[in-house]
Amino acid sequence: MKIRGVLLDLSGVLYMADQVIPGSPEALARLRAAGLPLRFLSNMTRYPAEHVRRHLAELGYEIAAAELFTPPRAVRGWLEAENRRCSLLVHPRLEPEFSGLVADEADVLVVGDAAETFTYARLNAAFRRLMQGAELVAMGDNRYFREPEGLSLDIGPFVHALEYASGQTARVLGKPAADFFHLAVADMGLEPGEVLMVGDDVESDVLGAVRAGLQGTLVRTGKYRPSDEDRLAGTDAWVADDLAAVVDRLLQK
Amino acid sequence: MKIRGVLLDLSGVLYMADQVIPGSPEALARLRAAGLPLRFLSNMTRYPAEHVRRHLAELGYEIAAAELFTPPRAVRGWLEAENRRCSLLVHPRLEPEFSGLVADEADVLVVGDAAETFTYARLNAAFRRLMQGAELVAMGDNRYFREPEGLSLDIGPFVHALEYASGQTARVLGKPAADFFHLAVADMGLEPGEVLMVGDDVESDVLGAVRAGLQGTLVRTGKYRPSDEDRLAGTDAWVADDLAAVVDRLLQK
Repeated sequence: MKIRGVLLDLSGVLYMADQVIPGSPEALARLRAAGLPLRFLSNMTRYPAEHVRRHLAELGYEIAAAELFTPPRAVRGWLEAENRRCSLLVHPRLEPEFSGLVADEADVLVVGDAAETFTYARLNAAFRRLMQGAELVAMGDNRYFREPEGLSLDIGPFVHALEYASGQTARVLGKPAADFFHLAVADMGLEPGEVLMVGDDVESDVLGAVRAGLQGTLVRTGKYRPSDEDRLAGTDAWVADDLAAVVDRLLQK
Repeated sequence: MKIRGVLLDLSGVLYMADQVIPGSPEALARLRAAGLPLRFLSNMTRYPAEHVRRHLAELGYEIAAAELFTPPRAVRGWLEAENRRCSLLVHPRLEPEFSGLVADEADVLVVGDAAETFTYARLNAAFRRLMQGAELVAMGDNRYFREPEGLSLDIGPFVHALEYASGQTARVLGKPAADFFHLAVADMGLEPGEVLMVGDDVESDVLGAVRAGLQGTLVRTGKYRPSDEDRLAGTDAWVADDLAAVVDRLLQK
């Protein structure tokens, strides 16, 4: 099926550890010139979207606010569509992204990567909301990530803690959840089958997108390892050396 | 098989919310007079054993230190038998219970109910120990407990967080793990089949004990609900109105 829109992972596709991946800026410019709508997908919920955009700008990537599709944005859209309000267990600097949607006694609890603000008191307060009937919505379920000083706990372990305590299963609105890809696709006014997801994480980016009915491409940059390709057997997903090779193939079609 | 030793749960068998259960003090005195060795089992790891004993003494129950079998005691015994050392993610007031067994770079990580000292920094440090190869040992996996101000997170959610992050499955040394019952039984110099476990929690006390090869009795005090009895179908466990009725039956045999 013809590709009418593209979703792009950030780290590992556009840059790696503060270094631009050679060829990616030009490839992105060619995609834009072809008029394809784009969304940039990040599971980052430790910092607000503006922080992510500023970081990209420092690397030379100018991304419009409307093009950055993050879990807080997915959650906002979902809350608005369902006409619901939430209480928050997120990093304080992320709270402004939920302005107008927070209410006492809300029946949704939204969890983000609260980092050092995951305290026992805050986790307990969130748990009590769940036991009073609030629905658990998680902005991802990643296990950990690498920081300069070592591996650090991501959002997933805390979501699992609340799931185990409450007996609930979280609605995940972050990669690789199908709901998240569908919200990003709808944000472009397209259907899942018309959209290609490009990423370096075989599970979170590529298989997540394929399970959600999108097309998927794994790039051999970033965290890619050759054994990842075996996991794509039996799917229509394809592999490309880097973003430049993806765009070559897309635009020659 | 003849009963040669008895394991007793505390809350719900001897007392409920700071009130002695009528008949339990006299029943316990009759058990002692019959010369049966006893162990009192608690999963409490938020306070040290001495705190538990003092609380029991305030209620009129005099329990020898050697009779109180707690997860820290089980862990000590296990570490000593395996000649291993540990690092700790426990409440600071519990640390003295591990004196002589703590070492930097230890290949065991022991987790207790650290309550408000479950901080992101401490959880992260524990996670990094696990990713460096330490084995996860948990002093229970209870989900939550009731406090005057509401439900509170117990140790289990934090153990599950570390399991999910690290990909490990914890060795649990607390009820209802068979290892814990076996250590308590061995502490009396008996075999599992000769020992009766009495408790008000059908899962944690009675089914846990039965799965570990002990005999089990559910009392209709404490958190008991009539539907609990259905869960004992197909086992040899029996039900009694209270500890007094258990002792009546034991001593008439």
